[in-house]
Amino acid sequence: MELLKQKIRENGVFIGTDIVKVDMFLNHMIDIRLLEEMGKEFKRLFNDINITKILTVEVSGIAIACMAAREFGVPVVFAKKSEAKNLSSDTYCSEVYSFTKNKTYKIRVAKEYLTENDKILIIDDFLANGKALMGLMDIANQAKAEIAGIGIAIEKGFQPGGQTIRDMGINLKSLAVIDSIENGQAVFRSL
Amino acid sequence: MELLKQKIRENGVFIGTDIVKVDMFLNHMIDIRLLEEMGKEFKRLFNDINITKILTVEVSGIAIACMAAREFGVPVVFAKKSEAKNLSSDTYCSEVYSFTKNKTYKIRVAKEYLTENDKILIIDDFLANGKALMGLMDIANQAKAEIAGIGIAIEKGFQPGGQTIRDMGINLKSLAVIDSIENGQAVFRSL
Repeated sequence: MELLKQKIRENGVFIGTDIVKVDMFLNHMIDIRLLEEMGKEFKRLFNDINITKILTVEVSGIAIACMAAREFGVPVVFAKKSEAKNLSSDTYCSEVYSFTKNKTYKIRVAKEYLTENDKILIIDDFLANGKALMGLMDIANQAKAEIAGIGIAIEKGFQPGGQTIRDMGINLKSLAVIDSIENGQAVFRSL
Repeated sequence: MELLKQKIRENGVFIGTDIVKVDMFLNHMIDIRLLEEMGKEFKRLFNDINITKILTVEVSGIAIACMAAREFGVPVVFAKKSEAKNLSSDTYCSEVYSFTKNKTYKIRVAKEYLTENDKILIIDDFLANGKALMGLMDIANQAKAEIAGIGIAIEKGFQPGGQTIRDMGINLKSLAVIDSIENGQAVFRSL
């Protein structure tokens, strides 16, 4: 998606050879017009499937998932990261290891919001090692929901998550794939 | 806002005399059509002011803030709750006490995303004791940004936050105000 790549080029912050910060338009400040276009692009990419829900995980996936949900006309369900007092105990739960934070955390979805009748599109902001996605897929599988596809905003193509998930036969599509970071600039994969 | 009140009546879960759970359409699953209407209602309520940004706090404020931001055509900035590795150290910071979780946490906004030139609308999902809002107002004040108004989805009118903030002269508007919970049902204030 050219507009997203342009934003990454102009406003992304690149640290070393593997860190990309997009706080300027996605992860701290949100460029809502850009996200509207991203929502439309996800609709275009997954237009041929009838989904019932979009599944994501807090925090940064929520805004993108909402803008995609507008296009598909379906609800968003976001997995919660902490054991909030107000969260039902009747939940699907999975463990996710975060390389960024160097710790394992739990993600949960209340059983009533994901069922075997659901055909879901998983949406997230970043794909690197794929641990968060694996957790969401695990939860979808526990619910016996069908995973119709996965839509990612920015994939770090030099980390193994994308390859691993595509090798499982999952319909994974990313709006921008960064194959490497060279001299403080992203090198994008041709899609 | 009648549509929101109707949703609260139909899908809200009321525990005792002070807990309202809206996981079914706002805090875990998101009814995107409802949130679109809420975004439009915020635009109607604050139509006479020219804002430059919408400020909220993760997690549950983000979706509503995004739908309002679409209507206003401005970016969202969301305060972060944890000290993430990727967050700039150059931040405005405030402390918030959570009654729900019985602990104090920090919220932060990177200084580059909020400046004295900003005229902001603060948006959040719930207003009870007002601690999160006070934290956001503190951050806006540190940035010397102008607080043009505060828009809340659901105000618990039987808790002191709303009164406290209105007494400060702030233009605070809530889409639904619950004055009490009686026999497992919400009693709404006439607005």
